[in-house]
Amino acid sequence: MTISTDSSSTTTFRDVALAARDAAATLTTATRAEKDAALLLIADALEAKTADIVAANAIDIERARMNGTSEALVDRLTLTASRIAAIADAVRDVAKLPDPVGEVVRGYTLPNGLQVRQLRVPMGVVGMIYEARPNVTVDAAALALKSGNVALLRGSSSAFDSNTLLVNVMREALVASTVTPDAILLVPGTSHESVKELLTARGLVDVIIPRGGADLINSVVENSTVPVIETGVGNCHVYVDADADVAMAVQILLNSKTQRTSVCNAAESLLVHSDIAEEFLAAALPALQAAGVTVHGDEAFAVIARKFGVDVVPATDEDWAAEYYSLDIAAAVVDSIDAAIAHIRRWSTGHTEAIVSDSATAIATFAGEVDSAAIMVNASTRFTDGAEFGFGAEIGISTQKLHARGPMGLAELTTTKYIVSGDGHVRS
Amino acid sequence: MTISTDSSSTTTFRDVALAARDAAATLTTATRAEKDAALLLIADALEAKTADIVAANAIDIERARMNGTSEALVDRLTLTASRIAAIADAVRDVAKLPDPVGEVVRGYTLPNGLQVRQLRVPMGVVGMIYEARPNVTVDAAALALKSGNVALLRGSSSAFDSNTLLVNVMREALVASTVTPDAILLVPGTSHESVKELLTARGLVDVIIPRGGADLINSVVENSTVPVIETGVGNCHVYVDADADVAMAVQILLNSKTQRTSVCNAAESLLVHSDIAEEFLAAALPALQAAGVTVHGDEAFAVIARKFGVDVVPATDEDWAAEYYSLDIAAAVVDSIDAAIAHIRRWSTGHTEAIVSDSATAIATFAGEVDSAAIMVNASTRFTDGAEFGFGAEIGISTQKLHARGPMGLAELTTTKYIVSGDGHVRS
Repeated sequence: MTISTDSSSTTTFRDVALAARDAAATLTTATRAEKDAALLLIADALEAKTADIVAANAIDIERARMNGTSEALVDRLTLTASRIAAIADAVRDVAKLPDPVGEVVRGYTLPNGLQVRQLRVPMGVVGMIYEARPNVTVDAAALALKSGNVALLRGSSSAFDSNTLLVNVMREALVASTVTPDAILLVPGTSHESVKELLTARGLVDVIIPRGGADLINSVVENSTVPVIETGVGNCHVYVDADADVAMAVQILLNSKTQRTSVCNAAESLLVHSDIAEEFLAAALPALQAAGVTVHGDEAFAVIARKFGVDVVPATDEDWAAEYYSLDIAAAVVDSIDAAIAHIRRWSTGHTEAIVSDSATAIATFAGEVDSAAIMVNASTRFTDGAEFGFGAEIGISTQKLHARGPMGLAELTTTKYIVSGDGHVRS
Repeated sequence: MTISTDSSSTTTFRDVALAARDAAATLTTATRAEKDAALLLIADALEAKTADIVAANAIDIERARMNGTSEALVDRLTLTASRIAAIADAVRDVAKLPDPVGEVVRGYTLPNGLQVRQLRVPMGVVGMIYEARPNVTVDAAALALKSGNVALLRGSSSAFDSNTLLVNVMREALVASTVTPDAILLVPGTSHESVKELLTARGLVDVIIPRGGADLINSVVENSTVPVIETGVGNCHVYVDADADVAMAVQILLNSKTQRTSVCNAAESLLVHSDIAEEFLAAALPALQAAGVTVHGDEAFAVIARKFGVDVVPATDEDWAAEYYSLDIAAAVVDSIDAAIAHIRRWSTGHTEAIVSDSATAIATFAGEVDSAAIMVNASTRFTDGAEFGFGAEIGISTQKLHARGPMGLAELTTTKYIVSGDGHVRS
């Protein structure tokens, strides 16, 4: 069955999910050559249909402006010819990546002669629930296809016209390939009911990956009976140890906080060891001020800052928990590395924490005891990223412990299967 | 805080879960030597307290008999001196296994000089919900401890007295070790409310592993907001291909079905290619009859069986879905390997399917297209098992695709953490 995505049709969620399951059965054995050819057709089609995509996107933009959406959000929603070209190039880059399917994760022969191989295989149907940016529609579809999965997409209703056209362009491109168009499917409609149907499609959908703010992710986790991979909520800390190189610590703090503020791997909290606090703040405060950063400090931090003629905003518990996504930072002075670790244990979202120190003992303690997806040792928190890690692509950054933790590339979109070969082996 | 497990105390679930979190923070850096020493103390204590354990178990047995529990279930509930010795020996075996914590899963240096290492680390708090057998209490606690996790246990209320004493014996043993007694905790009480509290303890409990029948597992999946690993429901198929060695196929079928019937890796369904059906049934039917197996066959199967003077029970959809856990098997004749794969796609629980064939093409098709945790090629379904796979221990067999699929050993009780080391690296 090939599903119509014509918005005037009466396709139900169940129709789409069953089509996804059927497509998954064919996609699991697609070769790398077949998948790469399909991806290149998609990239070409996106560029060829640029005018249509921009026109559909204009409908979303007009609706957003009428709804009083902020210009920052409108910008995230906007597709231009150059952005579409970049999206198409990203699809071509995915085609160049190695195929994770078929990789032998473990392989050995048992004493009784049975040969055990654990292979990477596609998950099947990957449900994606995401906000505003329509480029995620193409990104997610390309990564799913490359890893042999069906992408079942539920974007923001604010990007409905853009997403519908993007999916239709990709599906039409697949008609000329050996991959079924049903490898890329949109959840029908924009109702909350359709999200609920996706979240409870256990047995039809193999995994759901939400991408967006904390509210979206919490709602998905609370309501889903399909396994979920939580992504991307980051209250990242920079800890400046007593044995830190002050100049290095200032550079890492500035980069972590200000290189890009609207991302999950930006630093939101600073912890400074009391032994180095005065020396560090003497250098850090002018740098933070020059960068336009507002500091929300605890009392100990405020006292030292005042010595340098700087007033900080008094920090509350809300600041310790905040993901500002702005030029704000919460800051505290701690009397020991243990106090820093305890603060992080209490307030972190488990994404990324950095330590700046030249003490091997302090580094080992911090890396061993802090329970987060990534620990940066004398490096910026901004490095927790699939591209920076050399994965070539990223479907999101997992902040949960099951299945995947940290940046997720193509391998994290696969599961495994054991193939055990014998010559008549039976158990005695 | 060290929690009292005195049943007369008013300890709440939240108290216990917070104690578990605190214990997890200390356990994450426990060395292998510390964990192994703790395990050996536990093993010794279990043997030393045999009389107390048998006495507590007698209360459970008496209650079970008063409730009219079947003798088969009473047997599963029963602890004897020799069973306790075997449980203690299993704990000593766990101590001998390699520690999964600290294993470097990936490690490389990026072009910019950043050193990336992905290490295995404990999950944290592992919630286990399980039925009848009190030996799981010790098994689960030992495997969790070895992998640096806190075991938060919720056994069957039918084994409450046994489980409470076993946990107390293990906790008392830990007092003499460097591992906190709170590494092993029992969910307080036997109410359904306490299960609900465990299932919704997101942020306090890192993963829940249910072990038991399909009803228990479904209930956990439906109601949990904590990530779950589904285990052990098995409707395993044996497919006898047109190119099968008939004698081998009979041996594998018999072993898969009858070597032990009450286990999840026993075969419940037989699919025979029509080209070989008469020849195969001529040999298989007498063997199945001799073993006391009742065949629930489709019409094509029944017609051939009748030629050999054997009447089969007509199969219904219930039979194709059944996990008999008994000397029954559903059986169908299929006209092609594709029909066999389609049948398995429709009815399998995704645990284990076997193919018997000498055709490399058929084997590749079956192994590639069947979407189950394990594919047995010319081997019994009974080999899907942590011990048989050489894992040394097994916490369960995952039938889901996320995190772990197939037999789960100690590695599957860990997550990973990235440690990225630089010398002042910032992003440009």
